Amino acid sequence: MNEHTRQRAVILASGGLDSTVVAAVAQRDGYEIYLLTLAYRQRHAIEIERAAQVASALGARQHRVIEVDLRAIGGSALTDDLPVPKNRSEQDRGQGIPITYVPGRNLIFLSLAAAHAEVLGASVIYFGANVVDYSGYPDCRPEFLRAFEAVVQAGTKAGAEGRRIEVRTPLLSLTKADIVRLGLTLNAPIHLTHSCYDPIGAVACGLCDSCLIRKQGFADAGVEDPIPYAVS
Amino acid sequence: MNEHTRQRAVILASGGLDSTVVAAVAQRDGYEIYLLTLAYRQRHAIEIERAAQVASALGARQHRVIEVDLRAIGGSALTDDLPVPKNRSEQDRGQGIPITYVPGRNLIFLSLAAAHAEVLGASVIYFGANVVDYSGYPDCRPEFLRAFEAVVQAGTKAGAEGRRIEVRTPLLSLTKADIVRLGLTLNAPIHLTHSCYDPIGAVACGLCDSCLIRKQGFADAGVEDPIPYAVS
Repeated sequence: MNEHTRQRAVILASGGLDSTVVAAVAQRDGYEIYLLTLAYRQRHAIEIERAAQVASALGARQHRVIEVDLRAIGGSALTDDLPVPKNRSEQDRGQGIPITYVPGRNLIFLSLAAAHAEVLGASVIYFGANVVDYSGYPDCRPEFLRAFEAVVQAGTKAGAEGRRIEVRTPLLSLTKADIVRLGLTLNAPIHLTHSCYDPIGAVACGLCDSCLIRKQGFADAGVEDPIPYAVS
Repeated sequence: MNEHTRQRAVILASGGLDSTVVAAVAQRDGYEIYLLTLAYRQRHAIEIERAAQVASALGARQHRVIEVDLRAIGGSALTDDLPVPKNRSEQDRGQGIPITYVPGRNLIFLSLAAAHAEVLGASVIYFGANVVDYSGYPDCRPEFLRAFEAVVQAGTKAGAEGRRIEVRTPLLSLTKADIVRLGLTLNAPIHLTHSCYDPIGAVACGLCDSCLIRKQGFADAGVEDPIPYAVS
């Protein structure tokens, strides 16, 4: 397909495994990809650098970083000086909304992505939300995603002019092992990804919920995780 | 009412006439007010300073400024280096979506306000949207506001736990003259407000849509506008 006729898609890119696989899915679907990373003064700011490397490895048309200071809001272990839970059992991880939930984060991120999509003339946002491993996050649920499309429809120039902006979440119902396998199939640059909530320098801690879920996913898929961990 | 039992309300405070009157309405309604200003790298950054003065004059419990770089998105005369339209007729102002529309702005602002409200335990956001003078902005319409409440309900911890966050827009159907009169009745610090899209230093230009609407509002109310204009 000609570069100039390809449709544009905005990818919410955190530099993590899920969003990197999602970007590869968007490319497979034929879109010219525009990666968008939010610098929200997160504890794990290394992910911004990794997102840039992922964008480059994928040959993205653009990688845009938008700063939004969620530390001014607080209320999360990812933006406050609260301890990130470590080495929790699967059962503990499955209970309630974790302290690593950032209030309103996906709503804020999708709002920025929708505004960016509107300016770019993109009709699709790809978003790596997943309900299997992150059942505790209310802003990953399908009803939230549909409500979000409705508010964009009602409140943007694009919506007023009849252009829909669709939110696609191809990983929503996949297990982490499925996501690993899909990433390998699509040659996604998994070796560049970063998933840890509380890295030691650039090295994943190996003990936070995100590391535990990722390691289990690679184990279940029977594949070696290419990234190093402080505690393997 | 005891200070410690008063309910909290978040006010989206731009330092302008409308949001200042809205903050005074929230106080009249009995709320402890938490003003929230978005520093979005807008052309008229003077409004951040004015919002702080307004918060102080009203005795707000808090004035929080959150930075979000909408210049990275662009697409508006308020964040790009595009000229702000000047001296347009009422008829021209009423047509279509103006270039001063910032893509997704109210969605982004309300999303940040909802996250802030969630952390504060506030159940209400007061927002100075108005459909009389700003009919061209899709993100001031009632259907957008209801859709926004629905997405917050679906996607936040507050919503998941059954706490609603309501968006109140007491100015929605008021004329600018009504807003001026209401502000005077409530002793809102109108003299500190700033409405201009394209100020010369701290002085309102007097010719942009926002200045023209404000001046007409004061004229219609038969009240002198206490702020200076470069062109009166």
